[in-house]
Amino acid sequence: MTTPLRTAEVIAVGSELLGWTRLDTNSLFIAEQLSRLGIELKGKAVVGDDRARLTNVFRQSLARTDLVVLTGGLGPTDDDLTREAVADALGLELVEDESITVSIRHRFERRGMRMPEVNRRQAMVPRGAESLSNANGSAPGLSIGVNAKLVVLLPGPPRELQPMLLALCARDGAIGRRAGSERLYTVSLFTTGVSESHVEELVQPIYATWRDLPTPIETTILATPGQVELHLTLRSADKDAAVRTLERSRDELATAIGDAAFSADGRQLPRVVGDMLRERNLTVAAAESCTGGLLMQRLTDVAGSSAYVKGGVVAYSNELKARLLGVDEALLTAHGSVSEPVAAAMAEGLRRQTEADVCVAITGVAGPGGGTEAKPVGTVVIAILIDGHPLAVRTHLFPGGREMIRLQATQVALDRVRRMLMQ
Amino acid sequence: MTTPLRTAEVIAVGSELLGWTRLDTNSLFIAEQLSRLGIELKGKAVVGDDRARLTNVFRQSLARTDLVVLTGGLGPTDDDLTREAVADALGLELVEDESITVSIRHRFERRGMRMPEVNRRQAMVPRGAESLSNANGSAPGLSIGVNAKLVVLLPGPPRELQPMLLALCARDGAIGRRAGSERLYTVSLFTTGVSESHVEELVQPIYATWRDLPTPIETTILATPGQVELHLTLRSADKDAAVRTLERSRDELATAIGDAAFSADGRQLPRVVGDMLRERNLTVAAAESCTGGLLMQRLTDVAGSSAYVKGGVVAYSNELKARLLGVDEALLTAHGSVSEPVAAAMAEGLRRQTEADVCVAITGVAGPGGGTEAKPVGTVVIAILIDGHPLAVRTHLFPGGREMIRLQATQVALDRVRRMLMQ
Repeated sequence: MTTPLRTAEVIAVGSELLGWTRLDTNSLFIAEQLSRLGIELKGKAVVGDDRARLTNVFRQSLARTDLVVLTGGLGPTDDDLTREAVADALGLELVEDESITVSIRHRFERRGMRMPEVNRRQAMVPRGAESLSNANGSAPGLSIGVNAKLVVLLPGPPRELQPMLLALCARDGAIGRRAGSERLYTVSLFTTGVSESHVEELVQPIYATWRDLPTPIETTILATPGQVELHLTLRSADKDAAVRTLERSRDELATAIGDAAFSADGRQLPRVVGDMLRERNLTVAAAESCTGGLLMQRLTDVAGSSAYVKGGVVAYSNELKARLLGVDEALLTAHGSVSEPVAAAMAEGLRRQTEADVCVAITGVAGPGGGTEAKPVGTVVIAILIDGHPLAVRTHLFPGGREMIRLQATQVALDRVRRMLMQ
Repeated sequence: MTTPLRTAEVIAVGSELLGWTRLDTNSLFIAEQLSRLGIELKGKAVVGDDRARLTNVFRQSLARTDLVVLTGGLGPTDDDLTREAVADALGLELVEDESITVSIRHRFERRGMRMPEVNRRQAMVPRGAESLSNANGSAPGLSIGVNAKLVVLLPGPPRELQPMLLALCARDGAIGRRAGSERLYTVSLFTTGVSESHVEELVQPIYATWRDLPTPIETTILATPGQVELHLTLRSADKDAAVRTLERSRDELATAIGDAAFSADGRQLPRVVGDMLRERNLTVAAAESCTGGLLMQRLTDVAGSSAYVKGGVVAYSNELKARLLGVDEALLTAHGSVSEPVAAAMAEGLRRQTEADVCVAITGVAGPGGGTEAKPVGTVVIAILIDGHPLAVRTHLFPGGREMIRLQATQVALDRVRRMLMQ
């Protein structure tokens, strides 16, 4: 029995990942899969298509970690240098793996094409490497044992990389076989409507004690626009006990946080609200001004949302607020389009037009222009009309730029619907 | 005169950047600013809050590059180890910089607070480091000359990092002073409606010759969903000549590509179409089914879009297609909601309701459910009604999952409007 793999580094290869536009996102997926096996990601690197530099970075990485995963640079062109750099660093010769050549040739033949000679490069592998079949592309993956360590080479495109990594991490895969008996388990708790520091204040006294347990629980707080997430992690060899402990701990935090905690199972707010609507057999519609369709887009992003989303109206212009929602022009003139009476009239007009059970109206100033002293950029009025509830109209003021303001407006609208449905 | 800085690496510090959820995005901004100065980013790394590992990675990085930019790990807590690791690697002592202590103390006092003792750590700097003031936080940046090389430490939050980096890159900043006379210049060309390989086929014979010019132009092709981008880059000491050459080269590619090239100045498609509408004094409205508001959301994402976006309708349910757009129920029964007659009726109904000059209707199967043999997932019908043009209805089939299908549908709808307006 060899020592289990405990630590890993990821090296993403490709000059395009060093520009201004593209990030290596594969490393998130890799971090997640490895951590489930109890293998901790200790570092990441991005290197351009530069053989000497890649050889150097890879050698240093392998010196300080048990597992190195390289992604990208396995294509057929001269730019693709990962095989060469790894062979250089390990002092291995590149030899043609006939079975790879055959499988690439078949891949082309199935599409009625001849394999270009250049693709033969993809069959050149460091001597002793084990090849991994690629269901979605021509580049095979490779895994190479180096004493007690392991080196894995995967293609860059996520749809090729992901199934290959999952196979490697399975119980009988090259990584799965070498993982220890301990696994990392996680649960999450999502909150909205409370600030990060307020959440911290509520939960810190609780989670602070977990660090000193025999099996310590690690708590991470992550703030994203309109949402604060808590992630609890625990390393254990006993799955059932770990899950029990984590769920009990998560519930303790949920109790301390109260209504602001909206999801204990990874579901985002549009899906949580959607599930509540579905359970209650209710339909929803929206009348959007400043959010311009974002609320409906988020609701309908959820697969299966046609069961409860009727649709609605984007009334960006005052003309359409009147025409499509029947908002009285006198109301618009008297109060302005960003006002509580207009938001209320939008919600009522929407109900007349759609007969949806839950009607949400949003009007506001998303900026950058259009702000006034009385109604600065970020002012958003949200009206919610639900059968059996009084009409709820409230004015909010959101910080940040146009995109942030629009996102927060939809998040608060969804959260207010959620809270009303809970009553 | 010292040798100019030509190459750089970025090291992002923080264990939270090694999880499943957060990427280091600062490196994109840094890559852009440095490349403007002709300094090429050669590598990136992410390291957790681990002093020994950071020391090791930093030392290796400095050995192979002229400039190392470290981000994060400058806070006041025990987790913040960047100062220590850099001092370790360079063999420098940490000493208190009184001026930093004073400035942090003032920052707290301005808010009527006492400086916590822990913040004194932020004034401990490697001997000889130059400090950089931070307008948006308590962590000062640091820059340290190491022979002909330069090391820069910046705080992690983008709103603190960005202004500090801009100051460093200014003509009299620590990086700007050390940049060479050559700068990197770039232009872009965005295309849609053609595949990456087709674009490559059209432009490869042209750009292939540019590599061997006295001042070579580098061409990068970047495919994103519904869009293929060309980026041209050139290194030169003569700004005017560089810009002239790049613009001429870009225009050559644009001619080869034809109508599919929609933007030569970085504007995305919703803005390009918006600008065309504004110039022609036209308004736009949309009736969306499967895209559920995404088209309107993208149109209204553009600041100032209220000048030409009237709004529209999300008719996710058949009931609302009838009620809000007046689509004949018999038509829905006879052809199904995803059909050319229904898309046409949606566009016509939208025009009656909104009197917008440009009316776009989208209906389709975004999946994962709802597909049939005749109308598989990815089938999307788009109808466009523009004054002075015949009604244009077409059925498309898009690959990928729900999100990709919805995005491509809006991209094609916008592109078809663009092409019709050009006629």
